[in-house]
Amino acid sequence: MSGISPEEIISLCQTPEPATKDFMFQQTMYRIKDPRKSIPFYTGVLGMTLLKQLHFPEMKFSLFFMGYENPADIPQDETARSAWAMTRKATLELTYNWGTETDDSCYHNGNSDPRGFGHIGILVPDVEAACARFEQHGVKFVKKPQDGKMKGLAFIQDPDGYWIEIFTANVV
Amino acid sequence: MSGISPEEIISLCQTPEPATKDFMFQQTMYRIKDPRKSIPFYTGVLGMTLLKQLHFPEMKFSLFFMGYENPADIPQDETARSAWAMTRKATLELTYNWGTETDDSCYHNGNSDPRGFGHIGILVPDVEAACARFEQHGVKFVKKPQDGKMKGLAFIQDPDGYWIEIFTANVV
Repeated sequence: MSGISPEEIISLCQTPEPATKDFMFQQTMYRIKDPRKSIPFYTGVLGMTLLKQLHFPEMKFSLFFMGYENPADIPQDETARSAWAMTRKATLELTYNWGTETDDSCYHNGNSDPRGFGHIGILVPDVEAACARFEQHGVKFVKKPQDGKMKGLAFIQDPDGYWIEIFTANVV
Repeated sequence: MSGISPEEIISLCQTPEPATKDFMFQQTMYRIKDPRKSIPFYTGVLGMTLLKQLHFPEMKFSLFFMGYENPADIPQDETARSAWAMTRKATLELTYNWGTETDDSCYHNGNSDPRGFGHIGILVPDVEAACARFEQHGVKFVKKPQDGKMKGLAFIQDPDGYWIEIFTANVV
Protein backbone atom coordinates (compact mmCIF):
# COMPACT_ATOMS: atom_id res chain seq x y z
CA MET A 1 0.00 0.00 0.00
CA SER A 2 1.98 2.93 -1.27
CA GLY A 3 -0.48 5.81 -1.52
CA ILE A 4 0.12 8.28 -4.31
CA SER A 5 3.08 10.48 -5.10
CA PRO A 6 2.98 14.28 -4.90
CA GLU A 7 4.02 14.35 -8.57
CA GLU A 8 1.08 12.20 -9.62
CA ILE A 9 -1.29 14.44 -7.66
CA ILE A 10 0.06 17.47 -9.51
CA SER A 11 -0.43 15.66 -12.82
CA LEU A 12 -4.07 14.98 -11.87
CA CYS A 13 -4.81 18.69 -11.29
CA GLN A 14 -6.66 20.33 -14.14
CA THR A 15 -6.59 24.06 -14.83
CA PRO A 16 -9.91 25.62 -13.81
CA GLU A 17 -12.07 26.42 -16.84
CA PRO A 18 -13.23 30.04 -17.28
CA ALA A 19 -16.82 28.79 -16.77
CA THR A 20 -16.04 28.17 -13.08
CA LYS A 21 -14.32 31.48 -12.37
CA ASP A 22 -17.08 32.92 -10.14
CA PHE A 23 -17.86 29.71 -8.25
CA MET A 24 -17.73 30.03 -4.45
CA PHE A 25 -17.61 27.35 -1.75
CA GLN A 26 -20.46 28.92 0.17
CA GLN A 27 -21.89 26.39 2.61
CA THR A 28 -21.50 23.17 4.54
CA MET A 29 -24.73 21.58 5.72
CA TYR A 30 -25.42 19.13 8.50
CA ARG A 31 -28.48 18.24 10.51
CA ILE A 32 -29.01 19.19 14.13
CA LYS A 33 -31.49 17.72 16.60
CA ASP A 34 -32.19 20.78 18.72
CA PRO A 35 -31.65 24.45 17.87
CA ARG A 36 -32.09 25.29 21.56
CA LYS A 37 -28.71 23.61 22.06
CA SER A 38 -27.01 24.32 18.72
CA ILE A 39 -27.75 28.05 18.36
CA PRO A 40 -26.25 28.96 21.76
CA PHE A 41 -23.24 26.72 20.98
CA TYR A 42 -22.44 28.16 17.56
CA THR A 43 -23.01 31.77 18.65
CA GLY A 44 -21.94 31.85 22.30
CA VAL A 45 -19.18 29.25 22.28
CA LEU A 46 -17.84 29.41 18.70
CA GLY A 47 -18.61 33.09 18.11
CA MET A 48 -20.56 32.71 14.89
CA THR A 49 -23.47 34.95 13.93
CA LEU A 50 -26.89 33.84 12.70
CA LEU A 51 -26.84 35.18 9.15
CA LYS A 52 -30.33 34.05 8.17
CA GLN A 53 -33.08 31.75 9.39
CA LEU A 54 -35.62 30.09 7.10
CA HIS A 55 -38.69 28.12 8.14
CA PHE A 56 -40.64 25.76 5.90
CA PRO A 57 -43.82 24.85 7.83
CA GLU A 58 -45.29 22.75 5.01
CA MET A 59 -42.18 20.54 4.98
CA LYS A 60 -41.60 20.83 8.73
CA PHE A 61 -37.99 21.95 8.71
CA SER A 62 -35.94 25.06 9.37
CA LEU A 63 -32.53 26.21 8.19
CA PHE A 64 -30.05 28.35 10.10
CA PHE A 65 -27.10 29.86 8.25
CA MET A 66 -24.21 30.62 10.58
CA GLY A 67 -20.91 32.33 9.85
CA TYR A 68 -18.16 34.66 10.96
CA GLU A 69 -19.53 37.96 9.75
CA ASN A 70 -19.93 41.34 11.37
CA PRO A 71 -23.51 41.52 12.73
CA ALA A 72 -23.55 45.21 11.74
CA ASP A 73 -23.33 44.14 8.08
CA ILE A 74 -26.66 42.23 8.14
CA PRO A 75 -29.24 43.96 5.92
CA GLN A 76 -32.46 44.98 7.71
CA ASP A 77 -34.70 43.96 4.83
CA GLU A 78 -35.32 40.19 4.88
CA THR A 79 -35.08 39.73 1.10
CA ALA A 80 -31.81 41.63 1.01
CA ARG A 81 -30.68 39.64 4.03
CA SER A 82 -31.30 36.35 2.19
CA ALA A 83 -29.26 37.40 -0.83
CA TRP A 84 -26.53 38.71 1.46
CA ALA A 85 -26.41 35.52 3.56
CA MET A 86 -26.35 33.23 0.51
CA THR A 87 -23.36 35.08 -0.92
CA ARG A 88 -21.17 34.98 2.20
CA LYS A 89 -18.21 32.62 1.90
CA ALA A 90 -17.82 29.75 4.41
CA THR A 91 -21.21 29.48 6.03
CA LEU A 92 -22.51 26.60 8.10
CA GLU A 93 -26.06 25.56 7.24
CA LEU A 94 -27.78 23.82 10.15
CA THR A 95 -30.86 21.84 9.17
CA TYR A 96 -33.49 21.28 11.85
CA ASN A 97 -36.20 18.73 11.08
CA TRP A 98 -39.02 19.61 13.45
CA GLY A 99 -39.55 17.22 16.32
CA THR A 100 -36.07 15.68 16.35
CA GLU A 101 -35.33 17.36 19.69
CA THR A 102 -37.73 14.98 21.44
CA ASP A 103 -37.30 11.73 19.49
CA ASP A 104 -34.79 8.98 20.25
CA SER A 105 -32.74 9.38 17.09
CA CYS A 106 -29.31 10.88 17.02
CA TYR A 107 -27.34 12.11 14.07
CA HIS A 108 -24.21 10.36 12.85
CA ASN A 109 -20.98 12.36 12.85
CA GLY A 110 -19.24 10.28 10.18
CA ASN A 111 -16.24 9.26 12.26
CA SER A 112 -17.40 5.74 13.13
CA ASP A 113 -18.80 3.24 10.64
CA PRO A 114 -20.17 4.07 8.19
CA ARG A 115 -17.53 6.78 7.82
CA GLY A 116 -17.54 9.65 5.37
CA PHE A 117 -17.74 13.24 6.56
CA GLY A 118 -15.08 14.02 9.16
CA HIS A 119 -15.22 17.51 10.62
CA ILE A 120 -15.36 21.22 10.13
CA GLY A 121 -12.31 23.22 11.19
CA ILE A 122 -12.00 26.58 12.89
CA LEU A 123 -8.74 28.52 12.61
CA VAL A 124 -7.99 30.32 15.88
CA PRO A 125 -5.16 32.67 16.91
CA ASP A 126 -4.21 30.59 19.99
CA VAL A 127 -5.26 26.95 20.38
CA GLU A 128 -4.42 26.71 24.10
CA ALA A 129 -6.35 29.87 24.94
CA ALA A 130 -9.30 28.83 22.79
CA CYS A 131 -9.41 25.38 24.41
CA ALA A 132 -9.11 26.75 27.95
CA ARG A 133 -12.14 28.90 27.16
CA PHE A 134 -14.02 25.92 25.65
CA GLU A 135 -13.38 23.98 28.87
CA GLN A 136 -14.90 26.81 30.89
CA HIS A 137 -17.95 26.56 28.62
CA GLY A 138 -18.21 22.81 29.32
CA VAL A 139 -17.44 21.80 25.72
CA LYS A 140 -16.76 18.11 25.03
CA PHE A 141 -13.30 17.26 23.68
CA VAL A 142 -12.41 14.41 21.33
CA LYS A 143 -8.76 15.42 21.59
CA LYS A 144 -7.12 18.11 23.69
CA PRO A 145 -4.14 20.03 22.26
CA GLN A 146 -1.55 17.95 24.16
CA ASP A 147 -3.17 14.54 23.46
CA GLY A 148 -1.94 12.12 20.81
CA LYS A 149 0.69 12.55 18.12
CA MET A 150 -0.54 15.79 16.64
CA LYS A 151 0.31 18.35 19.32
CA GLY A 152 -1.17 21.80 19.20
CA LEU A 153 -4.46 20.95 17.60
CA ALA A 154 -7.70 19.90 19.20
CA PHE A 155 -11.03 18.38 18.30
CA ILE A 156 -14.17 19.42 20.12
CA GLN A 157 -17.76 18.26 19.63
CA ASP A 158 -20.90 20.25 18.99
CA PRO A 159 -24.17 19.35 20.80
CA ASP A 160 -24.88 16.60 18.20
CA GLY A 161 -21.39 15.14 18.43
CA TYR A 162 -20.04 16.56 15.16
CA TRP A 163 -16.28 17.05 15.32
CA ILE A 164 -14.79 20.52 15.09
CA GLU A 165 -11.03 20.87 14.65
CA ILE A 166 -9.36 23.80 16.44
CA PHE A 167 -5.98 24.76 14.98
CA THR A 168 -3.62 27.58 14.09
CA ALA A 169 -1.94 28.55 10.82
CA ASN A 170 1.27 26.70 11.66
CA VAL A 171 -0.48 23.36 12.25
CA VAL A 172 1.46 21.69 9.40
CA MET B 1 -44.90 19.25 15.90
CA SER B 2 -44.54 22.98 15.73
CA GLY B 3 -40.86 23.62 15.17
CA ILE B 4 -39.48 26.78 16.70
CA SER B 5 -40.43 30.41 16.19
CA PRO B 6 -38.11 32.96 14.58
CA GLU B 7 -38.40 35.03 17.77
CA GLU B 8 -37.22 32.16 19.94
CA ILE B 9 -34.26 31.58 17.61
CA ILE B 10 -33.28 35.24 17.97
CA SER B 11 -33.53 34.92 21.75
CA LEU B 12 -31.17 31.92 21.62
CA CYS B 13 -28.46 33.87 19.76
CA GLN B 14 -25.63 35.03 21.99
CA THR B 15 -23.37 37.96 21.19
CA PRO B 16 -19.95 36.71 20.10
CA GLU B 17 -17.37 37.15 22.85
CA PRO B 18 -14.24 39.20 22.04
CA ALA B 19 -12.18 35.99 22.52
CA THR B 20 -13.67 34.58 19.29
CA LYS B 21 -13.15 37.66 17.13
CA ASP B 22 -10.41 36.22 14.92
CA PHE B 23 -11.95 32.75 14.51
CA MET B 24 -12.37 31.61 10.89
CA PHE B 25 -14.43 28.74 9.42
CA GLN B 26 -11.50 27.42 7.44
CA GLN B 27 -12.21 23.85 6.38
CA THR B 28 -14.69 21.06 5.80
CA MET B 29 -13.22 17.57 5.75
CA TYR B 30 -14.50 14.37 4.23
CA ARG B 31 -12.87 11.15 3.15
CA ILE B 32 -12.35 10.11 -0.46
CA LYS B 33 -11.60 6.65 -1.83
CA ASP B 34 -9.50 7.61 -4.83
CA PRO B 35 -7.63 10.85 -5.53
CA ARG B 36 -7.29 9.76 -9.17
CA LYS B 37 -11.03 10.41 -9.45
CA SER B 38 -11.50 13.19 -6.88
CA ILE B 39 -8.64 15.52 -7.87
CA PRO B 40 -9.76 15.77 -11.53
CA PHE B 41 -13.36 16.25 -10.36
CA TYR B 42 -12.68 19.06 -7.89
CA THR B 43 -10.23 20.86 -10.18
CA GLY B 44 -11.52 20.17 -13.69
CA VAL B 45 -15.25 19.98 -13.05
CA LEU B 46 -15.75 22.24 -10.03
CA GLY B 47 -12.88 24.61 -10.79
CA MET B 48 -11.12 24.42 -7.43
CA THR B 49 -7.35 24.65 -7.03
CA LEU B 50 -5.14 22.30 -5.02
CA LEU B 51 -3.91 24.63 -2.28
CA LYS B 52 -1.69 22.13 -0.49
CA GLN B 53 -1.05 18.40 -0.37
CA LEU B 54 0.29 16.58 2.69
CA HIS B 55 1.42 12.97 2.91
CA PHE B 56 1.85 10.99 6.13
CA PRO B 57 3.57 7.72 5.14
CA GLU B 58 3.85 6.44 8.73
CA MET B 59 0.09 6.73 9.17
CA LYS B 60 -0.71 5.87 5.54
CA PHE B 61 -2.90 8.79 4.66
CA SER B 62 -2.75 11.96 2.59
CA LEU B 63 -4.62 15.26 2.77
CA PHE B 64 -5.55 17.51 -0.11
CA PHE B 65 -6.74 21.06 0.61
CA MET B 66 -8.89 22.43 -2.20
CA GLY B 67 -10.39 25.88 -2.63
CA TYR B 68 -11.34 28.72 -4.90
CA GLU B 69 -8.12 30.71 -4.87
CA ASN B 70 -6.00 32.25 -7.59
CA PRO B 71 -3.24 29.72 -8.41
CA ALA B 72 -0.88 32.70 -8.91
CA ASP B 73 -1.19 33.47 -5.18
CA ILE B 74 0.28 30.11 -4.08
CA PRO B 75 3.65 30.64 -2.34
CA GLN B 76 6.56 28.74 -3.93
CA ASP B 77 8.12 27.80 -0.62
CA GLU B 78 6.35 24.75 0.86
CA THR B 79 6.37 26.01 4.46
CA ALA B 80 4.95 29.33 3.38
CA ARG B 81 2.47 27.44 1.21
CA SER B 82 1.24 25.45 4.23
CA ALA B 83 0.65 28.55 6.33
CA TRP B 84 -1.04 30.23 3.36
CA ALA B 85 -3.31 27.25 2.64
CA MET B 86 -4.31 26.82 6.28
CA THR B 87 -5.39 30.46 6.50
CA ARG B 88 -7.61 30.51 3.40
CA LYS B 89 -11.31 30.71 4.17
CA ALA B 90 -13.66 27.97 2.92
CA THR B 91 -11.35 25.14 1.98
CA LEU B 92 -12.31 21.53 1.37
CA GLU B 93 -9.99 19.01 3.02
CA LEU B 94 -10.05 15.65 1.25
CA THR B 95 -8.65 12.78 3.32
CA TYR B 96 -7.26 9.81 1.44
CA ASN B 97 -6.54 6.68 3.47
CA TRP B 98 -4.10 4.72 1.35
CA GLY B 99 -5.48 1.62 -0.30
CA THR B 100 -9.15 2.60 -0.21
CA GLU B 101 -9.19 2.96 -3.99
CA THR B 102 -8.95 -0.82 -4.37
CA ASP B 103 -10.96 -2.11 -1.42
CA ASP B 104 -14.69 -2.86 -1.41
CA SER B 105 -15.65 -0.16 1.07
CA CYS B 106 -17.45 2.96 0.12
CA TYR B 107 -17.89 6.13 2.08
CA HIS B 108 -21.25 7.22 3.46
CA ASN B 109 -22.63 10.55 2.25
CA GLY B 110 -24.87 11.14 5.28
CA ASN B 111 -28.14 11.41 3.35
CA SER B 112 -29.42 7.91 4.04
CA ASP B 113 -29.48 6.25 7.46
CA PRO B 114 -27.58 6.96 9.59
CA ARG B 115 -28.00 10.57 8.54
CA GLY B 116 -25.97 13.57 9.68
CA PHE B 117 -23.82 15.52 7.23
CA GLY B 118 -25.82 16.67 4.22
CA HIS B 119 -23.82 18.49 1.57
CA ILE B 120 -21.44 21.22 0.61
CA GLY B 121 -22.81 24.03 -1.52
CA ILE B 122 -21.28 25.95 -4.41
CA LEU B 123 -22.67 29.36 -5.32
CA VAL B 124 -22.63 29.84 -9.11
CA PRO B 125 -23.62 32.79 -11.31
CA ASP B 126 -26.01 30.70 -13.45
CA VAL B 127 -27.40 27.34 -12.28
CA GLU B 128 -28.71 26.27 -15.71
CA ALA B 129 -25.41 27.02 -17.42
CA ALA B 130 -23.40 25.35 -14.66
CA CYS B 131 -25.59 22.23 -14.81
CA ALA B 132 -25.47 22.03 -18.62
CA ARG B 133 -21.70 22.04 -18.32
CA PHE B 134 -21.77 19.41 -15.55
CA GLU B 135 -23.87 17.19 -17.83
CA GLN B 136 -21.24 17.52 -20.55
CA HIS B 137 -18.68 16.38 -17.98
CA GLY B 138 -20.81 13.31 -17.16
CA VAL B 139 -21.52 14.42 -13.60
CA LYS B 140 -24.18 12.49 -11.64
CA PHE B 141 -27.23 14.45 -10.55
CA VAL B 142 -29.33 13.87 -7.42
CA LYS B 143 -31.67 16.66 -8.52
CA LYS B 144 -31.64 18.74 -11.69
CA PRO B 145 -32.67 22.42 -11.50
CA GLN B 146 -36.20 21.74 -12.81
CA ASP B 147 -36.87 18.65 -10.66
CA GLY B 148 -38.96 18.69 -7.49
CA LYS B 149 -40.41 21.57 -5.53
CA MET B 150 -37.31 23.72 -5.25
CA LYS B 151 -36.81 25.00 -8.79
CA GLY B 152 -33.55 26.60 -9.80
CA LEU B 153 -31.24 24.64 -7.56
CA ALA B 154 -29.50 21.36 -8.20
CA PHE B 155 -27.65 18.66 -6.35
CA ILE B 156 -24.79 16.81 -8.00
CA GLN B 157 -22.55 14.06 -6.64
CA ASP B 158 -18.79 13.84 -6.38
CA PRO B 159 -16.99 10.57 -7.24
CA ASP B 160 -17.71 9.18 -3.74
CA GLY B 161 -21.37 10.14 -3.86
CA TYR B 162 -21.17 13.20 -1.59
CA TRP B 163 -23.89 15.72 -2.41
CA ILE B 164 -22.97 19.17 -3.73
CA GLU B 165 -25.68 21.81 -3.97
CA ILE B 166 -25.50 24.19 -6.93
CA PHE B 167 -27.42 27.43 -6.42
CA THR B 168 -27.49 31.17 -6.99
CA ALA B 169 -27.80 34.11 -4.60
CA ASN B 170 -31.58 34.41 -5.07
CA VAL B 171 -32.26 30.77 -4.11
CA VAL B 172 -34.41 31.83 -1.14
